[in-house]
Parts: sequence; C-alpha cells; structure tokens
Amino acid sequence: MKRIFIYDTTLRDGAQGLGISFTVEDKLKIVRKLDDLGVAYIEAGNPGSNPKDMEFYEHAARIRLKNARLVAFGSTRRMNIAAEDDDNLKSLLKAKTDVVTVFGKTWDFQVTDILKTTLEENLKMISDTVKFFKDAGKEVIYDAEHFFDGFIGNEAYALKTLTAAAEAGADSICLCDTRGGIFPSTIEKVVAKVGQTVSQPLGIHCHNDTGMGVACSISAVQSGAVMVQGTINGLGERCGNANLCSIIPNLQLLGDYACIPEECMHMMTPISRSISEIANISHDETQPYVGGAAFAHKGGMHMDAVRKSTSAYELFDPSIVGNQRVFLLSEVAGRSAILKKINEIDSTITKDSPEASLILEKLKEMEAKGYQYEGAEGSFELLVKKILGCYAPSFELKEFKVIVNEPPVNEVNSSAMIKIHVGDQIEITAAEGEGPVNALDKALRKALERFYPDIRSIKLTDYKVRVLNSTSATASKVRVLIETSDGTNTWTTIGVSTDIIEASWIALVDSIEHRLLSN
Amino acid sequence: MKRIFIYDTTLRDGAQGLGISFTVEDKLKIVRKLDDLGVAYIEAGNPGSNPKDMEFYEHAARIRLKNARLVAFGSTRRMNIAAEDDDNLKSLLKAKTDVVTVFGKTWDFQVTDILKTTLEENLKMISDTVKFFKDAGKEVIYDAEHFFDGFIGNEAYALKTLTAAAEAGADSICLCDTRGGIFPSTIEKVVAKVGQTVSQPLGIHCHNDTGMGVACSISAVQSGAVMVQGTINGLGERCGNANLCSIIPNLQLLGDYACIPEECMHMMTPISRSISEIANISHDETQPYVGGAAFAHKGGMHMDAVRKSTSAYELFDPSIVGNQRVFLLSEVAGRSAILKKINEIDSTITKDSPEASLILEKLKEMEAKGYQYEGAEGSFELLVKKILGCYAPSFELKEFKVIVNEPPVNEVNSSAMIKIHVGDQIEITAAEGEGPVNALDKALRKALERFYPDIRSIKLTDYKVRVLNSTSATASKVRVLIETSDGTNTWTTIGVSTDIIEASWIALVDSIEHRLLSN
Repeated sequence: MKRIFIYDTTLRDGAQGLGISFTVEDKLKIVRKLDDLGVAYIEAGNPGSNPKDMEFYEHAARIRLKNARLVAFGSTRRMNIAAEDDDNLKSLLKAKTDVVTVFGKTWDFQVTDILKTTLEENLKMISDTVKFFKDAGKEVIYDAEHFFDGFIGNEAYALKTLTAAAEAGADSICLCDTRGGIFPSTIEKVVAKVGQTVSQPLGIHCHNDTGMGVACSISAVQSGAVMVQGTINGLGERCGNANLCSIIPNLQLLGDYACIPEECMHMMTPISRSISEIANISHDETQPYVGGAAFAHKGGMHMDAVRKSTSAYELFDPSIVGNQRVFLLSEVAGRSAILKKINEIDSTITKDSPEASLILEKLKEMEAKGYQYEGAEGSFELLVKKILGCYAPSFELKEFKVIVNEPPVNEVNSSAMIKIHVGDQIEITAAEGEGPVNALDKALRKALERFYPDIRSIKLTDYKVRVLNSTSATASKVRVLIETSDGTNTWTTIGVSTDIIEASWIALVDSIEHRLLSN
Repeated sequence: MKRIFIYDTTLRDGAQGLGISFTVEDKLKIVRKLDDLGVAYIEAGNPGSNPKDMEFYEHAARIRLKNARLVAFGSTRRMNIAAEDDDNLKSLLKAKTDVVTVFGKTWDFQVTDILKTTLEENLKMISDTVKFFKDAGKEVIYDAEHFFDGFIGNEAYALKTLTAAAEAGADSICLCDTRGGIFPSTIEKVVAKVGQTVSQPLGIHCHNDTGMGVACSISAVQSGAVMVQGTINGLGERCGNANLCSIIPNLQLLGDYACIPEECMHMMTPISRSISEIANISHDETQPYVGGAAFAHKGGMHMDAVRKSTSAYELFDPSIVGNQRVFLLSEVAGRSAILKKINEIDSTITKDSPEASLILEKLKEMEAKGYQYEGAEGSFELLVKKILGCYAPSFELKEFKVIVNEPPVNEVNSSAMIKIHVGDQIEITAAEGEGPVNALDKALRKALERFYPDIRSIKLTDYKVRVLNSTSATASKVRVLIETSDGTNTWTTIGVSTDIIEASWIALVDSIEHRLLSN
C-alpha cells in the first residue's frame, strides 16, 4: 500500500463555494473533525488576506492535533519588493503553523497579462518567497497555480517555475488545474513528465468544472503524485474542488493506497454529513460513498439481486464508510420490497393478500398527491397500520385556529388554539410560539400531555420544507418532513398541502401517533 | 470531428433515481426536449415490466422526432423458453419503436448465482433475443450488463457473450459498468481490447458510484467507443448515471468530437434546468456547465482576474451552453465586487466613500441573521438604495392578521386582513387563499392596487423555502426566496425569520417595492 498524503482545503478553497460562509467557531469545529478523520494536512485560510482567518489561527494554535498538520496559505511576495517587507508574508508567519503553502504563477499569459510583471520577476518572486519561509523553519508546499494550462502553453517556462520553487527548498510541489478544464488522460501524461524533471514529491489540486475532478486526481496519483488536495463534499468555487469523500475511498478501498488510518474510514459518512450541516447546505444525497442514496436500491430487479448477493450491485459493505444500505419505497420498488416492509408490521400478509393490493393502491394515490415515503418511514408504517386495521387514533381533532399578528401583540406574533377529543373527554387549550407552526406544535403537545404524559420525552429534531411546484409561487404545494426522537429511536413523518400549516400539522400528528402506537 | 452518438436514458435508468417519478405527460415533454437538444437515441422505458411505460409508447408513437430515435428497453428472453413465447419480448414489439435495446448478462457469477442458469443457456438467451428483434426489422443495441466486472472475472466468457450478440446481428454493443466501480484507466484498456475482438460499433454505459462516471465515459470514447449512454443531470439509481450535461460539452467544446448539432449547444442549460423542474428536484447549481454556480465568481482575487481576462478562470464563454457569468455578493467577495454592484445604482460612490463602508457593515449584519444576497439581488438593490437614501417606501404596514382554521370554514382554511398607509390614505382589506402565505400575498396586492394599478402586471413565478437550522425543529429559522416577473424582467427577493409568514412577508414586500422603485 503506497502512502498518499491527503491535503484538505475545505476551510480555504472550499469556503469559496456558493452559499458557504464559515464562522471562526465553525472552522475550529471542522479542524477537529478533519483531524479525527486522519487527513495529513488542513489548509484553513489565508491570514494575509482575511482578518477573520487570522483570528482563527490564534485559536487554532491551542488545539492539539492527533493526525493532521495545520497549514497557512498565501501568495508569493508582491512584485519588486523584498520578501521580508511583504506584509502578507509576515501575516503568514503570525499564523504560527508548522506548514506554509505558497501559491505562485506558472502560466506565462497570467504573469504578463493578469499579474503584469516580467517572467523573470515571477521566478524571483517564487524563489524569494519559498526561501523566506524555509529560513523561518517552515515545511513549505509550493502550489503551482494554472499549472496544466501553463504547461500546455509554454512547457519550458512552466517547468522553470517549479525548478525555482524546488531550488529554493520547497518540500513538495503541487500541480494545480485551477480552471478545472484538463482531462484525466492529459493529467496522467503531464504528471509523469514533471516527475522526470522535479525530484520533490508531487501533489495534485483539481477542480470539478468538467465533472472530472475526482478522476483527474486519481490519474495524477496513478502517475506518481503522492499528495492530493481537495475538499470534503467537493465544496468550492464554481463546480467545486475535487471531492475527498470520493477520492479517499476510491484510492483506499478500490485501489491499493493508504490515505487515512484504516480505523477512521467509518467516519467518512458522519463527518461528511456534519460538514454539510456546519456549512448549512443540504447534503448531496447522491454523492458517492457518503450520500443517503449511495447504497439505496429502488428498481425491483436490482433489489431482488442485492438480496441474493450484495456484491451484485454494491462495491463493498456500506458500513465500511459509515453508511448504510437502504431499500426505497415507491411504485417502482415492486411488490416484493413493499411486502418486506409490510411483513415487519404483520408477518402473515403475503403478496396475494387483498391487503397488499390495497396498500399498493393507497401508496400510488398518495404519491400522486406529492407524498414520498422514501425517508418518511414513520408515516408509511402508520399508513399500513391504518389499512390493516391495527390502528386506533389516539385522539381526534375537533378544531384548531392559528393566528399570526404583525406587529406582534405583547411581543408574540403567533398563537394557536386547539380542541381535541380523547375517548369521551374534551381538551381545549392554546399556546404561543415562534411562528405559527411552532405555536401549533406546542398547543397540540400541551393538549395531549394530560392523556399521554409519555410524549414529554419526545423531541422534534429536524424540520424540513420543500416547495413542490414552486412556479405556482405562494399557492405552491409544500412537503414537510419532521424528524422526531425519544432519545433512543428516531422516526420521520411527512405532510403535504398547499397550506404549510396543514402540511406541518399532518406530519406532527403522524409523529406523535407513531410514538403512541409503538408503546 | 469524430461523430459520437448520444444515447439518453433519463426516462429509464434516470427514473430509478432517488425521489424521481415521471408521469406519462412528463415523459412526453422530456422526449420533445431531448429531441430538441439533438441526442441520437432516447431510451424511454421498459414496456415489458411496466404498464405505465406501455401507455407512454402508445402516445410517443405519434410524436414526430427531428433528431432522435426512440428506443424500447428490455432484457433477454427468460430461460428455457423460445423467444417468440416470451411476453416481455412481445411487449417490446408492441412499443413500435425503430430501435430496441436488449440487456443481457456478462458476468459468469451473475449468470450462475443471480440468474441461476448455465453459462451456455445465457449465451443462447442473448443470441435468440437479438435474432428475434433483428427478424422483426429493428435496429438492435446490445447492452452488456456488468461488462467490466465480468471481463475482470472471466475475460473469455465475457467476450463470448459479446460475440453471441454480434453474431446474432446486433447493430452495436454497449459495455456497461453496472456497479460503477471501475476506474477510467481500466475502462480505457478494456475498451481497447474489446475493439480488437468485436467489429461492431461500441458504446459505453457508466454509473457514478466512484464520482467518475463522466471520466469513465470520456476514457471509453478516447479508446474508440462511439456511443455514450447517460442521463441529463446525471439522474439515476444510487449516485446516478454518467451525466450527459458534462459529457457533451467535454467532448464537443473541449475535445474534438461532434455529439449534438452545434446550434443546439446553447440549449444545454435551459433543458437541463427544465428537466430538474419536471423531475421536481432542486437543480444542482454546482453542476458543470449547466449549474447556476458553474460560471460564478466569489473570491475577490478571482473576480478581478476574470474582469481582466475571462480566460483566466473560465474555459469558454458561458453563453455557448446557454448559461451566464455571475459575480457573487458576499463578505469574501471583496470591496471591488460589491462596489461594482453599488455603482450600478449610484456611479459616484467610490471604495473610500463612507456609504461603501456602511453597506459592507449592513451586509455582514444581515448575513449573520441568515440573509444571503447571492441570488437575491432584488433585495440587495433595495438594501443599497435604503442606505444611500434614494428609497422612499411605497406604503407603510400598520397591521396584518392571518388566520388558519382547521377544519376549514366554508371550504376556506386561510384568510388575511391587512391595513396599510399610502401617504395619508388608509386602506384596509382582506383576502382568502390556499394557505396563509397565499392569503397574505393576495390581501397585500388587493390593498395596493388602488394606488399602484401597475402591480397587476407582476406575477410571482417562484417560491422557495429553506429551513436554516433545522435541528431547532418547528422553531427553526426559515429563509424564503420569491421570484417575481413582469413578463420582461425577473427579480428575486429574500426574507428570513423563525416565522415562515413573516419571512414570506419580508420577501413579498421587497418584491413589490423593487418593482415600484424601478418605474
């Protein structure tokens, strides 16, 4: 197994992604997670260009890392000044990291047209900057920006920039496809060529503008690169950086490379998910290895085959990357999959039972209304129990009224009144809340607690809203998913309506009924 | 330029994706769009296994296609019966397509362990089925399922299955990586080898389980494959199929291949978006070429460089694929980007103006509250105008009250009362709607129409809700985005609150104010 050094830049290049903005606390949390995962390097910011990053490095200096080395990132010195007079370079030292990554220009066109300096001065800028940090005792990684475009445009000059960095003492040299337009086959050839000129260990830094960021990184490794720069979930500007959550399992589980400690591999999925959470973006469920659909099976035929032998449609056991196999519920799932779910509730039902047809019919009817029981198995169970007749409602709603006032009355803007029957008893009560759904949620629990004190122990842990036909604007249908937990078990329920309050109500009631029926 | 035949399977393999369910109408719409885009083949279903698909083919037979040929998809005959006695095969003929794709087993392990028949019988199943459709006058494409796994496991047998199809008259042979675990470098070698044995044109069918579905397809083409099977937006089971929206521009714009008519290339982005819309899933904005972020620039340094020369960070002009360049607004954007936006409103402001600092401060404050002006430029403009003092509110809200009743009163469950001031005049009115936000929207417009009859011409065209900190469940903050159009211009506005009605209100007011201020 060949060792590959994983260099994570989620906190620097990843933070350039659409809709991403990390606070200092977010960054500190992510550093700990990346260290737990066992990456070799964590590039966390550009302290010269961003005061928030400097604040981060002050706090980060106090964290003891088990696996990773923290990296500060910055450009070569400005033109026509001495390195020791460059404020950006001085800021990088203040970050007090063991490792500094310096990026410089490779592409002659970029030097003359964007940076507007001479090709000679650019070489000196690279060399002076690397020397400056080596003299300060740092490990120096040199990032050759636009390397592949530069190499294709002017091979001799591109190699000269690398030699400048190498001769100044750079510990390793990373080749960057900054525009993300190079094909894996080209990367393979160019990396092999560079290896003949440069003796330093080589790295690769790819973007995903052709949808091939992962494959380009793998090609470079197959051609001898030993460091891979990328981000968790492929976060990054435009189409993102190369996705480490694909690269690491590709190399380590399907290839013969060691990227992270073996005992950390099962943290891939939880860490990938928690970084989506911290970045406050929806997790890409179709993402390889770490997405909720990565090991999900929907087609009836596939599902039957997977049951016979998991290797038929799966590369390895999902638990290795901390993920799980899922059989999805839907029309296409076929009877056998739905039957399996039904049998968990009532083992006597067979595929020819009239109940099986009734459930299938109902499923189709609900899907047509916008319901989707994939991921809302709490509601699916209730649906089945209702049809099988093993469901008695815990309560009956007589009426609710929700009122929202603007401006708020006595600082409260939402209140809900509710009237329910439990057996022959009536309960009427009310509650205030942060918004109408929260008020209704509180009123319902308050009304039920008298009869079912147990529901005090359950907690709503997630609330999601999806607009279905968004072009109908404010009259659109919405789908609400509510996740509930009692500390041990978690279940998800669903509601659909053009009225968000009604959709939330349906999901709320299912959430509570599911709990009461499981007792 | 070498011709590559694009084979779209969005409607068949793509429909296996998480949360995807196409109606017959959806499918007919998509067929027309794919034909407009100029793909060579449209595989639209498996009429033998799905009655909904049969209904589709009956309708589809009446569509006149300009560019594409419609394909029906099905498996080889069942074991131990004659092809002409197989109901599935007969169903495929009933679909009345010119082209039939037959899939069969390559991998010896799959034949013996999943299908549970002999290796010999499998070869006969392939050969009989291909012959059956050739005798019926069809163009026959043979899909070799699990080809690469089969080739690695038992090269001789894998090649025999292809020879069986070829000798029975298959017009072309497509090699499938059904589990999606093969690396591009392996695909390259295996496709080249197969080309030495089989003289039929070769196709490639990849999945994205390693995040390399696009690269694998490209490798196959570089090794001689002339047909690429994939889906729009990479829809498909698990991590999806190879994404045609990346493959087509990769081959045609960055490579030297002709995939679709050149004049169709600018339809890539609109068609990709409309298929997300029809599939009712959120469009992946980080998708290469066709995502909203594909040509978006955020980092201050990159933005300056792109302004100097677009080729610095862009592969080609976004309009070629029907997309556009975007400069994003955010803290990291740097002053110069924000200044550019401000100058569109007031050209006298410089980066040292006190107003510039005020706007930057306000921007940070709003971002901390959960606002994001990336994609909500309507609200950003209003924010700037407010700070610059060139904003006079069109009306003043005195009060609104929204009431939701369950059960509905006279079939109405939501009503809104509103009271506004316009100058020294008061208007109080009310409206009913589908849900509370719709009721409030209608009441506000009704109240304003008397003063601004113009607003009758604007229409809300999109409504989106995003739960920000979903773990606070029903007390979570929500971000609402509203898109409005007057037929010529479109603008997007934003509102954030723990109360979805208040968040929607803020975005609604901005939407109307933006229109009235632009007059």
